[in-house]
Amino acid sequence: MIDQTQLPYHFTYVNFKNYRQVATAIKGMVVRGAPAIGAAAAMGLALAANANRKKPKARLLQELEIAAGVLRLSRPTAWNLFWAIDRVMRRAKEASGDGTEVAAAVVEEAMKIAEEEVAASHSIGEAGARLIEDGDQVLTHCNTGTLATVSYGTALAPIRTAAAQGKKVKVIATETRPRLQGAKLTTYELLHDGIPVTLIVDGAAGYALKTGMVQKVIVGADRITKKYVANKVGTYLIALAANANNVPFYVAAPSSTFDLRNESSDVKIEERNAQEITHIAGKRIVPRGVPVFNPAFDLTPVELVQGFITERGVIVPDRFDAMSLL
Amino acid sequence: MIDQTQLPYHFTYVNFKNYRQVATAIKGMVVRGAPAIGAAAAMGLALAANANRKKPKARLLQELEIAAGVLRLSRPTAWNLFWAIDRVMRRAKEASGDGTEVAAAVVEEAMKIAEEEVAASHSIGEAGARLIEDGDQVLTHCNTGTLATVSYGTALAPIRTAAAQGKKVKVIATETRPRLQGAKLTTYELLHDGIPVTLIVDGAAGYALKTGMVQKVIVGADRITKKYVANKVGTYLIALAANANNVPFYVAAPSSTFDLRNESSDVKIEERNAQEITHIAGKRIVPRGVPVFNPAFDLTPVELVQGFITERGVIVPDRFDAMSLL
Repeated sequence: MIDQTQLPYHFTYVNFKNYRQVATAIKGMVVRGAPAIGAAAAMGLALAANANRKKPKARLLQELEIAAGVLRLSRPTAWNLFWAIDRVMRRAKEASGDGTEVAAAVVEEAMKIAEEEVAASHSIGEAGARLIEDGDQVLTHCNTGTLATVSYGTALAPIRTAAAQGKKVKVIATETRPRLQGAKLTTYELLHDGIPVTLIVDGAAGYALKTGMVQKVIVGADRITKKYVANKVGTYLIALAANANNVPFYVAAPSSTFDLRNESSDVKIEERNAQEITHIAGKRIVPRGVPVFNPAFDLTPVELVQGFITERGVIVPDRFDAMSLL
Repeated sequence: MIDQTQLPYHFTYVNFKNYRQVATAIKGMVVRGAPAIGAAAAMGLALAANANRKKPKARLLQELEIAAGVLRLSRPTAWNLFWAIDRVMRRAKEASGDGTEVAAAVVEEAMKIAEEEVAASHSIGEAGARLIEDGDQVLTHCNTGTLATVSYGTALAPIRTAAAQGKKVKVIATETRPRLQGAKLTTYELLHDGIPVTLIVDGAAGYALKTGMVQKVIVGADRITKKYVANKVGTYLIALAANANNVPFYVAAPSSTFDLRNESSDVKIEERNAQEITHIAGKRIVPRGVPVFNPAFDLTPVELVQGFITERGVIVPDRFDAMSLL
């Protein structure tokens, strides 16, 4: 994996030998972004399967259940994590043959998930690019590019595809406090692609929308239920401002992000540690003794979303039945 | 003045010998907050008057016009700056007697502005405290306390008065990027007062409002026209989220912030330098070559404001005629 905590300063790959290291990497945001987290968890299970392939099938499945349990606890919000683990575990249980054969099936399924996410990213790019007109400036939040997915991206995919089609497209990236994924990662990816990007603080999104600088908003998602889009904290404010100013607000996500069987629409919103806010670049910026509330995500009602850009095309919220097979 | 750029690390006073130093201090945000900027500019004119008091009256007025011009250019958005300069200059022009007498009138007027702002802060506190119920958690943005005014505050004044009246009141402070006035200054003031404060990133205001953590929002203002409240960037997003979740959104400001004679309602929004965003605590956090858009303020339509808390009481937007004398 690319170690995302080191970007944009250092571009380094890290290797993992077992699922515990993968779970720690997900928790510590060495890898982040909902589709990337799902694929990483699947690879964690592949490592667990490979390490136990010489064991009897029942024992191997037991080891996989333990690994799945640890990986499930790494982060609570992104649906892709649970979706990928469930899918790999289903394949393991259904596989015939001995431990070696079950392990091979698990590795194959993990590879398939990663490959499908890449294909989904490109399909999202194709579907979303149709919404982008020549000359558009698109506002996005957090990082939803190659780093957040296995490759290419979710919200960045339509922008990249539109640019590749020859459309002039510019991006406004929010810095995305507290971890600054917009400032550090989105700008890094777009500079690399040669797509013009302007950085703003999160609070300036309303002003940018109100003054006509933005023609479309496209964000990613960590989990989509029938009622809400859980995405990086700050997304809800941008959705409100886009709607108040008649700027279309789109959510780009592969089917692995849709949690439509969740009738309650409850989403556990991860609260991360205070130090993400109180310290920047190792320096304390807040007086000692100040309590912090640090939710990593927020919930945007689906009514504020003009369209979901998926690998199956653009879907409107009241047509979620089109995603009902998910 | 207290050097606000050094807080919360060092509490230091700085002294100024002439209006140029005062203008530089306003520009560099050694002093910030609309009422404090107005009073500081008035004091800058007092320094200019005092330095030129032995000159003939016509020459003194000429020097004052030059000083007023320089001070007017220090920052463009806060109305209090222009209001205070206009008021002192009017007094200078109307004063009778020789240079010494005119200079004394200017000094007196500057002192009067500072004293009136203190009185206004306390009246705002009284008026606004009536809106706060026992147990309320109030969300505020940026810093609007003693540091932003001459003393006591605008949006923090009702909170302080309510607490002094024995009401249990808690505060959620947004960190307020890029300059982190909420994280550095508001928490510092409230810790000092013993009023419970919880810090959030700006993007989390929507989630806090949506989940019922907030009973009232109170913010300050840099300029209030018939159509808009110009205040620290991010205010507009908070106003939208408060309105979407039926949480009252109040603006606390003295009459010196009201620019109601401005028929066009145009407000110049200051754009500050890129380094405020690209660097934190001296360290670059953004890849080189990324352009930045850094508006320091945004515009909230007055329709989103449930009430303006002024030293004359709480006024609703469609009763701006009550402020028509301003």
